[in-house]
Amino acid sequence: MSLLREASSRLWSIRSSEQVALAKRAAQITAELQQGVTRPYKNVIDCSWGDPHREGLNPLTFVRQVVAACLYPSLLTSEVLPVDVQLRAKGLLGECGGGSVGSYTSTAGIPKIVQSVSEFISQRDGAVPSSPENIFITLGSQRSLMMVLKIFVKNEGTIQTGVLSPVPSYPYFNMALSMQGGVMVPYHLCEEQGWKLKVDELSRALHAARGHCNPMALYVINPGNPTGQVQSRKSIEDVIRFAAEEKLFLLADEVYQDSVHDPKCEFVSYKKVLFEMGPPFSSSVELASFNSISKGYFGECGLRGGYVEFVNLDPTVMGHVYTLFSMDNCAAVLGQIILDIMAHPPQPGDPSYPTFSEEVRAIQDTLASNVQRVQTVLGSLPGISCQPIKGGIFAFPQLHIPPCAIQQAKEAGMEPDVFYASRLLEETGLCVGAGSEHGQSEGTHHIRLCIATPTENMEEVLNRLSTFHLSFRSHFS
Amino acid sequence: MSLLREASSRLWSIRSSEQVALAKRAAQITAELQQGVTRPYKNVIDCSWGDPHREGLNPLTFVRQVVAACLYPSLLTSEVLPVDVQLRAKGLLGECGGGSVGSYTSTAGIPKIVQSVSEFISQRDGAVPSSPENIFITLGSQRSLMMVLKIFVKNEGTIQTGVLSPVPSYPYFNMALSMQGGVMVPYHLCEEQGWKLKVDELSRALHAARGHCNPMALYVINPGNPTGQVQSRKSIEDVIRFAAEEKLFLLADEVYQDSVHDPKCEFVSYKKVLFEMGPPFSSSVELASFNSISKGYFGECGLRGGYVEFVNLDPTVMGHVYTLFSMDNCAAVLGQIILDIMAHPPQPGDPSYPTFSEEVRAIQDTLASNVQRVQTVLGSLPGISCQPIKGGIFAFPQLHIPPCAIQQAKEAGMEPDVFYASRLLEETGLCVGAGSEHGQSEGTHHIRLCIATPTENMEEVLNRLSTFHLSFRSHFS
Ligand SMILES: Cc1ncc(COP(=O)(O)O)c(C=O)c1O
Ligand SMILES: Cc1ncc(COP(=O)(O)O)c(C=O)c1O
Repeated sequence: MSLLREASSRLWSIRSSEQVALAKRAAQITAELQQGVTRPYKNVIDCSWGDPHREGLNPLTFVRQVVAACLYPSLLTSEVLPVDVQLRAKGLLGECGGGSVGSYTSTAGIPKIVQSVSEFISQRDGAVPSSPENIFITLGSQRSLMMVLKIFVKNEGTIQTGVLSPVPSYPYFNMALSMQGGVMVPYHLCEEQGWKLKVDELSRALHAARGHCNPMALYVINPGNPTGQVQSRKSIEDVIRFAAEEKLFLLADEVYQDSVHDPKCEFVSYKKVLFEMGPPFSSSVELASFNSISKGYFGECGLRGGYVEFVNLDPTVMGHVYTLFSMDNCAAVLGQIILDIMAHPPQPGDPSYPTFSEEVRAIQDTLASNVQRVQTVLGSLPGISCQPIKGGIFAFPQLHIPPCAIQQAKEAGMEPDVFYASRLLEETGLCVGAGSEHGQSEGTHHIRLCIATPTENMEEVLNRLSTFHLSFRSHFS
Repeated sequence: MSLLREASSRLWSIRSSEQVALAKRAAQITAELQQGVTRPYKNVIDCSWGDPHREGLNPLTFVRQVVAACLYPSLLTSEVLPVDVQLRAKGLLGECGGGSVGSYTSTAGIPKIVQSVSEFISQRDGAVPSSPENIFITLGSQRSLMMVLKIFVKNEGTIQTGVLSPVPSYPYFNMALSMQGGVMVPYHLCEEQGWKLKVDELSRALHAARGHCNPMALYVINPGNPTGQVQSRKSIEDVIRFAAEEKLFLLADEVYQDSVHDPKCEFVSYKKVLFEMGPPFSSSVELASFNSISKGYFGECGLRGGYVEFVNLDPTVMGHVYTLFSMDNCAAVLGQIILDIMAHPPQPGDPSYPTFSEEVRAIQDTLASNVQRVQTVLGSLPGISCQPIKGGIFAFPQLHIPPCAIQQAKEAGMEPDVFYASRLLEETGLCVGAGSEHGQSEGTHHIRLCIATPTENMEEVLNRLSTFHLSFRSHFS
């Protein structure tokens, strides 16, 4: 009998085991194909992650050059690297303990980089002030979210801390919340209205939860994952007013801020709107805003880096926040360096500017054209409907699964969307995310595809999906 | 009135505010010196961290070359890098999603690297089996420790989970434990016997704690931080027997396994001893063993990487562990790559072998000679005594502080060792750690110095310390 068995049983396996099973099966098929097993396709395409480099997008040259030079400063004396790369790397190394990226940094990050990030935020938000003391550089936004939850999710007492969280959502947030001992208070985004966040739904969710738990915070993802909506300024104002009235701490997950595809939309940060609303909002609503090097055209998921900015937190609480973050020792230095580049990218006139801006534009164009193609192709398929993808890196189409397929899924003990996804994988080698991982309204079924991938790959994904979808429908009707 | 103020007040500032004040003062003095303020010294030397590169040791060339090549694969086509670097980098990139270190990896790390680590462990331990499924690569050992605490520290119920933890200790472990809602059960290492870990003291501590809390685990650091002892096989056996009898989960922090300076000592892992003890021990005692890229001759603290290996955990618990670790998304890929190099360093015959082995030997020689010098110099000073430094990267001498200095410290509201350290800083520009941060037996006072630094710097540290110490003593007696 294990000593730990009982102690750890409260950690239920929150990751959908069906999604894990899909990923394992994808790996198995890949191995079989490599061993020469023949199937109607020659490779597995996995678009179930939100991982741009995995999907084939390239890292930015300037980013990789600076980081490589910081790691291996002998490169600075050779002719291999442009002058602005060398200057940047030298400057950054000067900020590292002992001139090495191998040294620990201060808790909140290298002070000079925290300062850069603060300037970046202020510039992004049209001169809304930002103070370095409110910014913490972390090991990625997932880590920032976990840390911030620790600030207010209580484990003592009988009533659990609640956090309003969207359906569909980024599932790791809800997992982190549960692990922390809190409870998710689901509010539904309105699919028919392009996954709009509606305040009356927030209000419904909040009132339904009161009494069962103590709702203390509201989590929003803008631009949305997996839903691709981009909130308007007006919508953000409404949410802020609601948070103020209901005294909710706002957690604004803005990791997709770089990725707005619809020219009629723009990303506006919660912080900017909050400040522009003026008092009492600007001086009272507590806000944490998250950003990451993993998303947008950087796509550096594997290097781990992000930051969180706090607004309107009591100085005593900020003291606790400091202690909390100091627990990680510090964020990975190379992730910090990439944040410096995100904050201060090459400027016109710099030797690296032409390549940098060309690479960024190419990625943005690819995403925009993928969005078009996905909407055109899915729009032409019967039994599938996809809301406009205005931002982010995913499509999240709704599937209208025929009743006898639903029946068969039930008999197999599977969610209908997992059933669909697993047949899609078996028959075409295409691995997608199942909507049930992200949460969806009762009786609806979705899949999630990553659109941050080269055009050719996107075409292949759409081909496989279309062919399968039509045959699935004819099989089950 | 802040919404969060009350909620977060349970997070007391656990970091010794006095140590933080020292670090801040050191930064201030550095800034003043740069602005031209004159003082009896021209720079601040900070040896309060355990951060080899910050203290001036160099990174290993092979490590930095491989990582730089993985980041910026254009380097692979140039002549800049040795062939074995190129081969290693290519092989590793082949294991990354999309061939980029910017992709997320599996929860436990890149499978091939987890496999490498497993082979390394097994080889280190004289063929004791190691299974990749029991190994998780993490964002550093600090993170591993925090994760492992989550497995068994409970927040529910009225009785807190206790963990036996050494005095003196690595303070971040105790902080993480408190944050998690657990309580430290202190056991004292025996200073007079070279900081020996004595089972009768473990037993005393455990029995004193029972009733107040529920002691579930025993944390050991071997080689010791800050104490520099290296446990013998016999001592480890005794500890394992004790853990078995008392049904304690063993947390073996072995991050200094590379750093044994006394030729009469050797590092033996808890796992090796456990297996060699045979059943029932080898099949029942639950163990987590920790290692890191931050320590030893790698010293890559800033890149964040480590691993934990579990032994004898129930499969159900391992399932929970998996879920828990999946919360971080994944460890930083470059940290993972350095673990691969730690597991499989260049071999004789490889082009990089001569440089690699030369660099490693140079660091080992530097540490060994620093140990000699520290012991000689401190040994010759009145009112200071230092136990033999057999391993690790610190000296932790005891100070015999004159009564009137103790009195004056009290009047200033300071711990006597902080008083000593802050005068040391003001008068000589040398910043050391205060023993009170690490814990020490009532009435004793210590300081901690990092010895992972070039010889010249070590000499300068010892000079400043000696001069100050003598003048401090004559001033206060
Ligand atoms: C909405 C959202 N938030 C946070 C994250 C975490 O990103 P990271 O931890 O890589 O910064 C993700 C990753 O997919 C995400 O989609
Ligand atoms: C005993 C001990 N354990 C763990 C750590 C954490 O190391 P890291 O998180 O850098 O791997 C340290 C760092 O100083 C340490 O001294």
